[in-house]
Amino acid sequence: MLRVEQRISLVTLGVADVARSRRFYEAMGWRGQQVQETVFFQAGGQAVVLWSRAALADDAGLADEGATFGGVALAHNVRSTAEVDEVIADAAAAGATVTQPPRPTFYGGYAGCFRDPDGHVWEIAWNPGFPLDERGDLTVPPLDDAT
Amino acid sequence: MLRVEQRISLVTLGVADVARSRRFYEAMGWRGQQVQETVFFQAGGQAVVLWSRAALADDAGLADEGATFGGVALAHNVRSTAEVDEVIADAAAAGATVTQPPRPTFYGGYAGCFRDPDGHVWEIAWNPGFPLDERGDLTVPPLDDAT
Repeated sequence: MLRVEQRISLVTLGVADVARSRRFYEAMGWRGQQVQETVFFQAGGQAVVLWSRAALADDAGLADEGATFGGVALAHNVRSTAEVDEVIADAAAAGATVTQPPRPTFYGGYAGCFRDPDGHVWEIAWNPGFPLDERGDLTVPPLDDAT
Repeated sequence: MLRVEQRISLVTLGVADVARSRRFYEAMGWRGQQVQETVFFQAGGQAVVLWSRAALADDAGLADEGATFGGVALAHNVRSTAEVDEVIADAAAAGATVTQPPRPTFYGGYAGCFRDPDGHVWEIAWNPGFPLDERGDLTVPPLDDAT
């Protein structure tokens, strides 16, 4: 049995309109590269990809019923509560739907949520227990004995 | 306007049964830590989190209609076509549903897809154009001039 490395290489967001979605993420300050109808954003040690949702479903051999929540949420952690407020405000200005205004969380942090133009779910969080390094990489601290 | 850093800190997979889902990912070779009903896997510079789907939807302020595909696919890139075959076989043995058996891709790579026990979509890919470093971090190469 192979020991599968613990990592995600790409997160692909299936979208209805690649140009609209690219504008949204670029309005948030991201910068991507496009090849034909696919946009790639370098995101730490992985990539976030925007691609036609129909092509994505077809490529993966899936039936697509068009739901906008399949149980996946992406989190972007920041370094302060003020930054949470700013990013959520920026997302709203860029056309996102804020589903959860920033508020204190049960784990002692502060977070809010929005959905991008295709309904993809983002949480913007400040979590003092999960440190970010200079590049923004997150380290899960020792947890099993902390309960 | 804030310049939002290009990264994902956590990918949270909402699941029906955290213990079942943890068993699946650990059968794939991953090792996580659990706090109460949440499992955290360090995955490169981010974390993959398993959490109750109902809690996730509630926390994000979402209505959940129970769909298993919301347009998001996670990709795990490997270093050879043989590794694609092995990981897909391991996933099937661990209880995944293979929706796309490994095959050559339109971009000159080789990939297959499976869904985890909750329907979350994974692509296992070998892509010679997207290099992986020793840790497994992926770099998007210069693309805009390559079309």
